[in-house]
Amino acid sequence: MTVTDGRLPLSAWVEERRAEIEASLDAFLPRAPAAPGLIADAMRYSVRAGGKRLRPLLTLATAEAVGSVARPVNPSNALRLAMPAACALELVHTYSLVHDDLPAMDNDTLRRGQPTLHVVHGEAMAILGGDGLLTEAFSIIARAPEDPDGRLAQRKLRVVATLAAAAGAEGMVGGQAIDLHWSGQGGPQAPPVASPDLDRLRDLHARKTGALIRASVVVGAIMAGGSDETLRAVDAFAADLGLAFQIVDDVLDVEGTAAALGKTAGKDAAAGKVTYPSLVGLDGSRALAKEAIARAESSLRGAGVPTDYLLGLAAWVVERQQ
Amino acid sequence: MTVTDGRLPLSAWVEERRAEIEASLDAFLPRAPAAPGLIADAMRYSVRAGGKRLRPLLTLATAEAVGSVARPVNPSNALRLAMPAACALELVHTYSLVHDDLPAMDNDTLRRGQPTLHVVHGEAMAILGGDGLLTEAFSIIARAPEDPDGRLAQRKLRVVATLAAAAGAEGMVGGQAIDLHWSGQGGPQAPPVASPDLDRLRDLHARKTGALIRASVVVGAIMAGGSDETLRAVDAFAADLGLAFQIVDDVLDVEGTAAALGKTAGKDAAAGKVTYPSLVGLDGSRALAKEAIARAESSLRGAGVPTDYLLGLAAWVVERQQ
Repeated sequence: MTVTDGRLPLSAWVEERRAEIEASLDAFLPRAPAAPGLIADAMRYSVRAGGKRLRPLLTLATAEAVGSVARPVNPSNALRLAMPAACALELVHTYSLVHDDLPAMDNDTLRRGQPTLHVVHGEAMAILGGDGLLTEAFSIIARAPEDPDGRLAQRKLRVVATLAAAAGAEGMVGGQAIDLHWSGQGGPQAPPVASPDLDRLRDLHARKTGALIRASVVVGAIMAGGSDETLRAVDAFAADLGLAFQIVDDVLDVEGTAAALGKTAGKDAAAGKVTYPSLVGLDGSRALAKEAIARAESSLRGAGVPTDYLLGLAAWVVERQQ
Repeated sequence: MTVTDGRLPLSAWVEERRAEIEASLDAFLPRAPAAPGLIADAMRYSVRAGGKRLRPLLTLATAEAVGSVARPVNPSNALRLAMPAACALELVHTYSLVHDDLPAMDNDTLRRGQPTLHVVHGEAMAILGGDGLLTEAFSIIARAPEDPDGRLAQRKLRVVATLAAAAGAEGMVGGQAIDLHWSGQGGPQAPPVASPDLDRLRDLHARKTGALIRASVVVGAIMAGGSDETLRAVDAFAADLGLAFQIVDDVLDVEGTAAALGKTAGKDAAAGKVTYPSLVGLDGSRALAKEAIARAESSLRGAGVPTDYLLGLAAWVVERQQ
């Protein structure tokens, strides 16, 4: 893994890290004949369909930043240590998209400009493929990086706990359940939907997208040997970053085009979904995103780590067009 | 947790352990308001719907047996250490049933005598509920039993690795993919189905049910501090036990009634599924199951641990009527 001198421009840093992430994802994913070819292909299809790799980039940027001040871990070692966790985060993100896109969920046929997994491999393989990706995420953390004398066991176990808490019923899965409930897909046992307000919307997204973005950053800090204080500071940064990310997502769904987004635009409004623009308008949403990013930056500056790439990624999140 | 003196009859041992498993499962499952009530309810519904708890019983029986000879772990401590892993195994098993029952998969409306999760809570909540159960399994292992000084980190991490490998694309998910492929549900990209024979059927079930049964036993031995040699011996026992379990399952699907099975009988034949009876007949299947159990017993006797409860559970597996 190449070590930068800390002065590489963000775009070059992102390009380098992304290539490393792609190679690692490819190396970590199961392949035939150890796994049946059909399920291996289904899992690879979704992961290869791409995306920004924002979550693993956040993991690596955090690991690099924390590793540059934590001892005895140096930045290059921090990257090596954090890469499996970074890939695990991307697999969990990918599985959540695969299941969200299913006919019984959001019923989306286009994702990142490509037909969704259930369109290409059928609904059954899409359910299983998502299950496989989620399971593989934990497998990767447990087995990599190699650690014959068990010195990394506590860190890895903390990463497992952090990722599982973020992805589970109290986090991402819980947020998705709220989202479906609001959309009238909560099932026969669902209680009436309470009138959505900004607090409830924030809770939904803190779970649905925020939890995994926070975990992306925190696991990077854990693997780089960050102190509890550092972990708290980068977690606060990521909580506001996640909020900004979701607001921008909602705004782009209103303003964007399918060509730019690589997915169907205007889905939220068509589905009658509660979004930041539907509650506070487009200008109000943009203002909320800016405030969140300002808070995120302030938390990060208090973490005592180099902020360049993390702030760069944060700016990219709010300025992106897709 | 009550410690037996090793001479408690199997049925009493099972009853005691099962009560402890039920209480632990209830304690481990997420609840509102930490998790949204809807998803917490969906997850609990499936877990409460019962079942034999065979997998966690295997974990505890193995931990108790291995703990009685491994030092410095004593049997009572071994049970305490293994209970979280035992519950994790049951959650992974339950999630697999929830997803298998979905309309896009086996489309089953009855399980353990109860309406399946998607019938009660809708398809979207059933997909998410399964996702939540799978994720929670890893969360439980990482956070329990409490281990402030990290002395259990290596064992727990090995349990994560064992469970993820057994449940993932090379194990249970892979087996389910093969099963669906054979049933014509492999999706648009699926290659033609090779003519099924006994070797292929054995591979399917070694993945689909065998891998998790092996993991149930192995994680018990890991948490009880068993040696690599002990782990190999109990793993060999469980591989043949899993084979016998599946053969009996296939036989019961032919011979059983919905009342006894708590699920729709005759589904395999109706769906044109390849089973042990369809390949070697009912008598041939029973003979294969007996051979497998004989091999399992022989492996276990070589493990140098008390065999009573494990052999009792094995006998129960082949003699069960549901």
